[in-house]
Amino acid sequence: MSTITIIGSGNMARGIATRALAAGRSVEILNRDEAKAAALAAELGANSTSGKLGQVPSGEIVALALPFDAAKEVVSAYGDTLAGKTVIDITNPVNFETFDSLVVAPGTSAAEEIAALTPANVVKAFNTTFAGTLATGETSGQALDVFIAGDNAEAAAAVSSLVSDGGMRPIVAGPLKRARELEGFQFLVMTLQANPAFETFNWNTGLKIVD
Amino acid sequence: MSTITIIGSGNMARGIATRALAAGRSVEILNRDEAKAAALAAELGANSTSGKLGQVPSGEIVALALPFDAAKEVVSAYGDTLAGKTVIDITNPVNFETFDSLVVAPGTSAAEEIAALTPANVVKAFNTTFAGTLATGETSGQALDVFIAGDNAEAAAAVSSLVSDGGMRPIVAGPLKRARELEGFQFLVMTLQANPAFETFNWNTGLKIVD
Repeated sequence: MSTITIIGSGNMARGIATRALAAGRSVEILNRDEAKAAALAAELGANSTSGKLGQVPSGEIVALALPFDAAKEVVSAYGDTLAGKTVIDITNPVNFETFDSLVVAPGTSAAEEIAALTPANVVKAFNTTFAGTLATGETSGQALDVFIAGDNAEAAAAVSSLVSDGGMRPIVAGPLKRARELEGFQFLVMTLQANPAFETFNWNTGLKIVD
Repeated sequence: MSTITIIGSGNMARGIATRALAAGRSVEILNRDEAKAAALAAELGANSTSGKLGQVPSGEIVALALPFDAAKEVVSAYGDTLAGKTVIDITNPVNFETFDSLVVAPGTSAAEEIAALTPANVVKAFNTTFAGTLATGETSGQALDVFIAGDNAEAAAAVSSLVSDGGMRPIVAGPLKRARELEGFQFLVMTLQANPAFETFNWNTGLKIVD
């Protein structure tokens, strides 16, 4: 049984771990605060272990369930330890002060900035899936679309398999720079969640290509 | 009965006209080739008229059912004639040679470039709805989402009413610069239509926020 390491122990960590377990993977939760990692692993139950941020990840896939700044710090600190691994970047680098732009410059993306800091194969995924929807992998009875972008085909395929085994639809959209479009649009979707015009939107919507 | 003027007589003109008629509007089709405009108006039937590009549009809303370069030419040629009108920009400024980027610079959008050329109130809309899906306003039995962005609230509201009266769901996403995210993501969606990994995608998908 292959293992997915998840760094972080918040709602996105819980969501991704839940889908990974549903996909038949083991999960390893690492966190700076080891007790929080242990609590999440205990909640997740069978096939879940925990540890402290900084230890070598067991998984060939390492999901950074972290905000953008923390994700950059973590890959920098791990350095060459992550070489050869597939690192999932889920971040949405929104300027939360203005809620009117991203904090990355136009023409780049958080994923590309993270990739510049690590020898790992960085794959963008799960940035358009809100944590709550990952509990079941569905929104309104429809399987979530999980958009994936990465420059390493094998790494993107590994994430794609994780997604499909977890009951969702992987959409491998292209090279890592497609993260620009994924981050941009999810920013727009996030602004709508807080918009009183959309009463049914409550950080529980799913972005889908309906076909 | 209010009138929507549609400039162009291709598939997007047909699609938008069909939804406008379903919304209880009259439509006026203008085209450089007047015979093509007349043929589309005849096909659309009742409440449809036609004319030649260059004549003053009857509609308070003018939809540019044109590619990006043609849209820029048309608003420039109309000049102050469009002052006070609501102009819908539907364009996706994709670099069709590389299919790997937009032709507008990062940090701007086709909509903003068009708006700079006209005193009209430019509203981005219908850039994420493929022509074929506008025949019914649905994809797989779900009402299309029509994303709308504009700096003039009254103009955006007029387009929103047109969309909802036409049986679709308007999503007013914010100021005109949100067109950056709308154009970026639809570019990504377009690249997937030609991707053999997605056999069911055939320029007939719908981009939706499922809630």
